[in-house]
Amino acid sequence: MAFNKRVKIKTILDQHPIGSEITLMGWVRTKRSNKNVSFIALNDGSIITNYQVVADPNVIAEDVLKKCTTGACLKVTGTVVESQGAGQASELNAKSIEVLGEADPEKYPLQPKKHSLEFLREIAHLRMRTNTFGAVFRVRHALAFAVNKYFNDKGFFYIHTPIITASDAEGAGETFKVTTLDIANPPRSEDGSVDFKQDFFEREANLTVSGQLEGELAALALSEIYTFGPTFRAENSNTTRHLAEFWMIEPEMAFYDAEDNADLAEDFLKYLINYALTNCQEDLKFLENRLLDEEKSKPVDQRSEMRLIEKLKFVAENDFVRITYTEAIEILKRSKPNQKKKFQFLIEEWGADLQSEHERYLVEKHFKKPVILTDYPKEIKSFYMRQNEDGKTVAAMDILFPGIGEIIGGSQREERMELLVSRMEELNIPTDEMWWFLDTRRFGSTPHSGFGLGFERMVQFVTGMGNIRDVIAFPRTPGNAEF
Amino acid sequence: MAFNKRVKIKTILDQHPIGSEITLMGWVRTKRSNKNVSFIALNDGSIITNYQVVADPNVIAEDVLKKCTTGACLKVTGTVVESQGAGQASELNAKSIEVLGEADPEKYPLQPKKHSLEFLREIAHLRMRTNTFGAVFRVRHALAFAVNKYFNDKGFFYIHTPIITASDAEGAGETFKVTTLDIANPPRSEDGSVDFKQDFFEREANLTVSGQLEGELAALALSEIYTFGPTFRAENSNTTRHLAEFWMIEPEMAFYDAEDNADLAEDFLKYLINYALTNCQEDLKFLENRLLDEEKSKPVDQRSEMRLIEKLKFVAENDFVRITYTEAIEILKRSKPNQKKKFQFLIEEWGADLQSEHERYLVEKHFKKPVILTDYPKEIKSFYMRQNEDGKTVAAMDILFPGIGEIIGGSQREERMELLVSRMEELNIPTDEMWWFLDTRRFGSTPHSGFGLGFERMVQFVTGMGNIRDVIAFPRTPGNAEF
Repeated sequence: MAFNKRVKIKTILDQHPIGSEITLMGWVRTKRSNKNVSFIALNDGSIITNYQVVADPNVIAEDVLKKCTTGACLKVTGTVVESQGAGQASELNAKSIEVLGEADPEKYPLQPKKHSLEFLREIAHLRMRTNTFGAVFRVRHALAFAVNKYFNDKGFFYIHTPIITASDAEGAGETFKVTTLDIANPPRSEDGSVDFKQDFFEREANLTVSGQLEGELAALALSEIYTFGPTFRAENSNTTRHLAEFWMIEPEMAFYDAEDNADLAEDFLKYLINYALTNCQEDLKFLENRLLDEEKSKPVDQRSEMRLIEKLKFVAENDFVRITYTEAIEILKRSKPNQKKKFQFLIEEWGADLQSEHERYLVEKHFKKPVILTDYPKEIKSFYMRQNEDGKTVAAMDILFPGIGEIIGGSQREERMELLVSRMEELNIPTDEMWWFLDTRRFGSTPHSGFGLGFERMVQFVTGMGNIRDVIAFPRTPGNAEF
Repeated sequence: MAFNKRVKIKTILDQHPIGSEITLMGWVRTKRSNKNVSFIALNDGSIITNYQVVADPNVIAEDVLKKCTTGACLKVTGTVVESQGAGQASELNAKSIEVLGEADPEKYPLQPKKHSLEFLREIAHLRMRTNTFGAVFRVRHALAFAVNKYFNDKGFFYIHTPIITASDAEGAGETFKVTTLDIANPPRSEDGSVDFKQDFFEREANLTVSGQLEGELAALALSEIYTFGPTFRAENSNTTRHLAEFWMIEPEMAFYDAEDNADLAEDFLKYLINYALTNCQEDLKFLENRLLDEEKSKPVDQRSEMRLIEKLKFVAENDFVRITYTEAIEILKRSKPNQKKKFQFLIEEWGADLQSEHERYLVEKHFKKPVILTDYPKEIKSFYMRQNEDGKTVAAMDILFPGIGEIIGGSQREERMELLVSRMEELNIPTDEMWWFLDTRRFGSTPHSGFGLGFERMVQFVTGMGNIRDVIAFPRTPGNAEF
């Protein structure tokens, strides 16, 4: 016999079906009792709002009520009635309560009080039961769905590019090795080196750092594609902005030049933000207040100038600034922190790589808007970016967001075989191993572009969470693969 | 200046804007010429149908037309006119043609003739430019979108469970190791064993075989969740049904019992099929004909009884058969192939594990319908499945599809702490390492269920492709991590 005859709290709050007899299931957040009545705040994860269950001790046995402690899971049947308290339109008059699972108040770690984010990270298996993380993961879901909906509606095709790969051509960072060899005692060739011919893939293999190159193969067949999958960096970075395992969205489009690429990226980011504003109102309101609370402990000049929702609307409604790297260098050279030697890395000449402090200055101090920075020196960008006519720069594009820094990196791709090969040779990238990539330039090449959006950074921006470990369910970082 | 001012062929075929001047971009599939006119069939991947470009040699220079060979990429501007040929409502009268990228007919591997699937697998970087693989990957996209839409519409939340994990508790098969150690010369502890404390995660780590356990954590907070991500098996299986890297969809639902679970699974599969039937008509029609063609070389009794689309409709419109393992054993015992000893593994007694031949008999011969098999002996199923009252079986559920075999595996989960722990101890699964998993039973436990759908097997079923390597862009199998 089917068990799931419950109504979700989200549905009840949408409809307030006064007079109906319904069944709720969910977890106790709090219980307040006096001798005449108990009020139980129940949450089922469908929405941030708790629903109030009213239990009369003449109806519900005392030993049952005793077990309705924070964290316990209940099945409650009763009648929806107009609420007598403020702040809610209806509540449930309990006719029966079944305790599906208890939660010993002496042992359950999530008591109704404030827990630090650090503590909650240690119990990541339970933290989704809190208001903060419930909100974060509902917003994350909404953004993930919006990613798929945006591209599907535009006629892009979702491609699953490989996670395990034998090519590390992009050289985007250190990679994780994937093997089935016995690491304690790997098979050896005659010269003593490890015999990777005996490994699963008969060669060395890694976890992917990007699906871009494979994405290009698909774009040069299906025109417009995107990837949305996990990518990996084995960098020993213990920061609030880095994960060893994170999700990336990488659209690749045939027939797009650098300007088309920037147009798409800006439109896409605004779509995602608007989607969250429309579909996650309660959660964003909660997260906005959480952030205000958190910032109260900071000096006034370090607090956000805008509230969370205000900031999201501002970004969604205003054009991003578009400037070239060369223009940015001029602005930075003349900037106060550069003149007063406040930057850790002073900007002295064209060609300098931009550090986080420079990006933040441009976005947060100078323009106070998202910035699309284009046409970087080719020396500081990847081999596959299209070379501009000046011979010095490439058609790269980075999008910088307030509080986040680089959220998107992309470029028009070099579609001209000779220029691509000569750049690869300059950088000692083996063209023979990349025969398949070069085939797309050899046969039916065309101008094309693409970019990568770090999904967790986007979730951080929309939720206002300061640490990237708090926007992915089970973060992987150096020394941490728990759960 | 933006480059992408083209109209997609899909849009033109939807609208046939007779009289409009438009720009198309795409790849040449074929060219037929006589001295008065050239007909170029152009494809841009947006739809399987080619669009006909008509080029008058008095308008388009001869040296340009010469370069319009199969595989070349063109930008064509012209006027949409009513077509004089049969089979198409309109065509493009070319005013100008720009060859964006040539394709040397002596070297381009995809000439307009029949290529074997084996050959195309070797050039997976180009095969998406063929009709067959264009269709497969458009259908794959549609199914992936349908997965997300189905769950989003139902209020499920998409959770990204970890890819790298230190737990291999499910024991679903051999795992890939993930490491940053130097395999040729790993650091050693004093006793000579590899010192994994110096590895990136400070312990041994693997690629995940399933996101289920982490999915359960999320379901016991948010009620209804699903995962959709890559999973890995390091099994040395060179079959048409196995990949080392494949995508799985794993919904987990609090408050669902075994029957709720089966209801959801059946509804979900039918939704996916109906979505493809509605949204992929041209591609499915093409794939149906491809399959008919392929089966012409088979003996009549090995050909499919139904055409592809007929089969999809049949599955979408009819109830799946639901029987217990015990009933299935009785049917198999009495079956002709068992009595005549035609099965490789004869069914002699209750408790036998079902092989592919038995599953196929039930689905393809006996019921001629998808079958939901439930309540397997606990000995042949995983530790986390809910124990039935008979003390012998668990609330497992496998869904078997014609031609595919097991497409879904799932169960009601054991929510009762004591029963779960004693089963883990029987199977020597370390309960201390699984403290976080057991916490969900310790605090606020509840009946819950879930299942896993192998995405590639679903794509195989819907597209009619016989080899699983032909439904994922860049398959990973033993010895193969190319591209």
